[in-house]
Order: sequence, then structure tokens, then C-alpha cells
Amino acid sequence: MKELNLYEMKKVEIIVRGENLESVLDILESAGVSGYTIIHNLSGKGRHGFHEGHLMFNEEDVLDMVISVMPEEQLEVVLEGLRVFFNKHSGVVFVSDVKVSRLEKFKK
Amino acid sequence: MKELNLYEMKKVEIIVRGENLESVLDILESAGVSGYTIIHNLSGKGRHGFHEGHLMFNEEDVLDMVISVMPEEQLEVVLEGLRVFFNKHSGVVFVSDVKVSRLEKFKK
Amino acid sequence: MKELNLYEMKKVEIIVRGENLESVLDILESAGVSGYTIIHNLSGKGRHGFHEGHLMFNEEDVLDMVISVMPEEQLEVVLEGLRVFFNKHSGVVFVSDVKVSRLEKFKK
Repeated sequence: MKELNLYEMKKVEIIVRGENLESVLDILESAGVSGYTIIHNLSGKGRHGFHEGHLMFNEEDVLDMVISVMPEEQLEVVLEGLRVFFNKHSGVVFVSDVKVSRLEKFKK
Repeated sequence: MKELNLYEMKKVEIIVRGENLESVLDILESAGVSGYTIIHNLSGKGRHGFHEGHLMFNEEDVLDMVISVMPEEQLEVVLEGLRVFFNKHSGVVFVSDVKVSRLEKFKK
Repeated sequence: MKELNLYEMKKVEIIVRGENLESVLDILESAGVSGYTIIHNLSGKGRHGFHEGHLMFNEEDVLDMVISVMPEEQLEVVLEGLRVFFNKHSGVVFVSDVKVSRLEKFKK
């Protein structure tokens, strides 16, 4: 869809307890990620994906979702940083393909 | 992207009126879904996708979005449960491909 | 996945400052988009995607995300409308593939 000025990127969605939000943002910034959006005050429950043996979130937990879009080469750096963090903390990471439109004029 | 420990799953996003949230969670749990995340207090309007003839949501409706990630073989069970429910209630279901990272160590 | 009654559509996610929400909804409606969902009160920071040289959002900005699903032929009209708008305003647009289930019976 090059005619629509759409470029392929990776969308990373990270769900963590609110108390861990700042740590996740630090990991993103250390990896050189320049922007993100946060959805606050989610709730969640149970096990996601591969965490069959482990209850990640309780219904009382207040969660945040961080959404960030990056080129594929940056994804590996981000996931490596998250891997270290998630050795000690609960969370979920989803990666999907997304196209980003170069809509905006560049301003200085 | 096996080298990043990413596994292909299906992401299901369900948008319903808040009064129907518990029913949707029951359907997910009956289908053996082990985890989900909820974004609360969305608003919405109008028709989505194929519901051309039918106004699904009004601007006053308070909506919730349930996000769940599951293996493809579980998707069919979930959609069948939702199909029965959506015969009587309004809602939208989006399915997309997502990769999930086995980031966390397994704990007991 | 035709056996699951899933049809391929395009999912458009638009993140803008709350003050610009109505303008974006007007653009969608002008393009004939019949439905959308809004996640309110996001926060965000920095640069997304291709906006390397330009700080789009500050941490104090209150953002909204508009989610809409449409057939591919409608996407071009929507992006063209957004392009004009984003010449003057900050925002992010993500496009991804999604499948929508024809779950609901058609009512009149």
C-alpha cells in the first residue's frame, strides 16, 4: 500500500500493573523508543498466553497498557530489555504488524 | 521471529455495553480462556463492519472492550459462544494476528 | 477462515488530542464511516513512527484514540481526509489487518 504512504512497523502492546509503568517506560526510552501512548486503569484477570502455570493479575489489580510503534530492528532491543524486567514482574507483551501513515508534515 | 521467542496467537477484541460485560467474560471462561484485559468506559457510535442495517450503539452507551489472546484452536469455541450471545445483544468482535513473547519465567 | 464467518477489514486507530476529537469524527463521517469506538483519556509522549524531528505530544496532553474498522476501499478516502487535517494538527494513525465476524443477526 505504498500509494497510501503506509510504512510497515511493529506495534508493541505492554500490559503491566500501574506500579510498574515507569519501569517499562524507562526500558522503552533506554531502547531509543521515541514515543508511546498509555491507556490507564485497565482491569484484567488470570493467565495470558503462555503463562499457564502462573496467575499474573488479580481482579483487583489496576493495569496500564503502553502502546508503541517502532521499526522491526528496534523490536529486538525492546524485547531484550523487557525480558530482564519480566523475570521479576508480571506482564504481557503483544507484538503485531501495523502500518503507519506519513500524514503529518515535518515541522521544526 | 522465533529467535525473539515470539509465538503466533489470535487476539480477540470484543466491544459490548457495560451491562453485558459479565456475560462476555462468562463465555470466555466457558471456552477455557485463561486471561483477558478490559478497557473500561469507551464510547462509540453507529454501525461497525457488517451491521449496515442496524444501529448497534448510541452515543450515550458506555462500552467496555475485552482483549484476549488465545491459540487459533480456541478461537472457534469462543466465536461460537459469542455468536449465540450476539443473537440477542449488540457488540463487535475483531480478530487479528498477534505474537506473544514468552518473556516471563515460569513461577509456581 | 471463512468457516468462522470472518471477513478481512482494515482497522484504523487514530490518536489525537481531545480538543481535536470532533474534527476527526467529522472526517470519518464525511468519508462514510458508519461506526467507531473511542478510548478516552490516554496519555502519551514524544514522537511516534516517522515524526522524528517533531515532538507531537507532551506528557500533559490528554489524548483520545478512535478505533474504526472499514473495508480497504474506504481506507483511502479516510486517509486522504486525515492527511489534510494532520497538516495542521498533531496525531498518529495506525492501520492494521483485522477480521470481523458476522456474529449478529441483522435486525431492523
